[in-house]
Amino acid sequence: MNHQSLIELGHRLQQRSQWLAVAESCTGGLIAAQITDIPGASGWFDRGVVSYSNRAKTELLGVPEALIAAHGAVSGEVARAMAAGLRQRAGVHWTVAVTGVAGPGGGTPDKPVGTVWIAWAGPDGSVDAAHCLFNGDRASVRLQTVERALHGLVRQVGVG
Amino acid sequence: MNHQSLIELGHRLQQRSQWLAVAESCTGGLIAAQITDIPGASGWFDRGVVSYSNRAKTELLGVPEALIAAHGAVSGEVARAMAAGLRQRAGVHWTVAVTGVAGPGGGTPDKPVGTVWIAWAGPDGSVDAAHCLFNGDRASVRLQTVERALHGLVRQVGVG
Repeated sequence: MNHQSLIELGHRLQQRSQWLAVAESCTGGLIAAQITDIPGASGWFDRGVVSYSNRAKTELLGVPEALIAAHGAVSGEVARAMAAGLRQRAGVHWTVAVTGVAGPGGGTPDKPVGTVWIAWAGPDGSVDAAHCLFNGDRASVRLQTVERALHGLVRQVGVG
Repeated sequence: MNHQSLIELGHRLQQRSQWLAVAESCTGGLIAAQITDIPGASGWFDRGVVSYSNRAKTELLGVPEALIAAHGAVSGEVARAMAAGLRQRAGVHWTVAVTGVAGPGGGTPDKPVGTVWIAWAGPDGSVDAAHCLFNGDRASVRLQTVERALHGLVRQVGVG
């Protein structure tokens, strides 16, 4: 993600007194790290949650255990619940949530390595989600997920 | 941090059925990102919390508002409370917590840019803390903090 786009994202959010939070599974903190690389991010970035275990998804984001059991942690339903749950708990305007199989293990025929779901929740409470299937190794899948998540956010906030 | 040291850290924790969680302020997710770069980290890494706002430190880690008001968010007291609070809330054995002034803004005569506190909590409930004063720009302060935090963790867990 273009550093300048994130700076503009921050300006836009701060102008509107809006706050952002992120929930990450497979990216493990990379999205929050890229956001907080921007000086002054403390004026518009509230928190990040790296909900690596299912228990963390339930405890920190309010994702129902039954939803994870029914659809799997890597699913559109869980990605949406992560984004909506974090938005409610943190009391922020915007959230981004990602859950995926970065590999090399963990892939299944239904959800091969590179399968990622990303969800974005906005000020009006609406939640959008996208399904991705990325090629490459663990590091590459993680970086492509960060890019896609941040591009979607920038687009939704209306930067550029 | 040497990739191999983190792999050994993971092996050691998994052998002992012990779990790790991290709480980050100034590093903004970089510690969690480096940990989750290790394949199979889901077997020993439970969660990360990027408690960028003071409200997040209180809500997610149980750091008392009064403690932040009395000592400042960047203090040994708050770093210790972050590590101990996360250990209790997540129900894990090991935690690492960092809080600091990465710059370029936010420095004061008492706590100049580069001031960082790191705390480590272990299975017996003990908490150690270290004060650091790093040179360099925002990115450099963040990376030096990650290094110091992970080296301290590896040493405490007894790897290598």
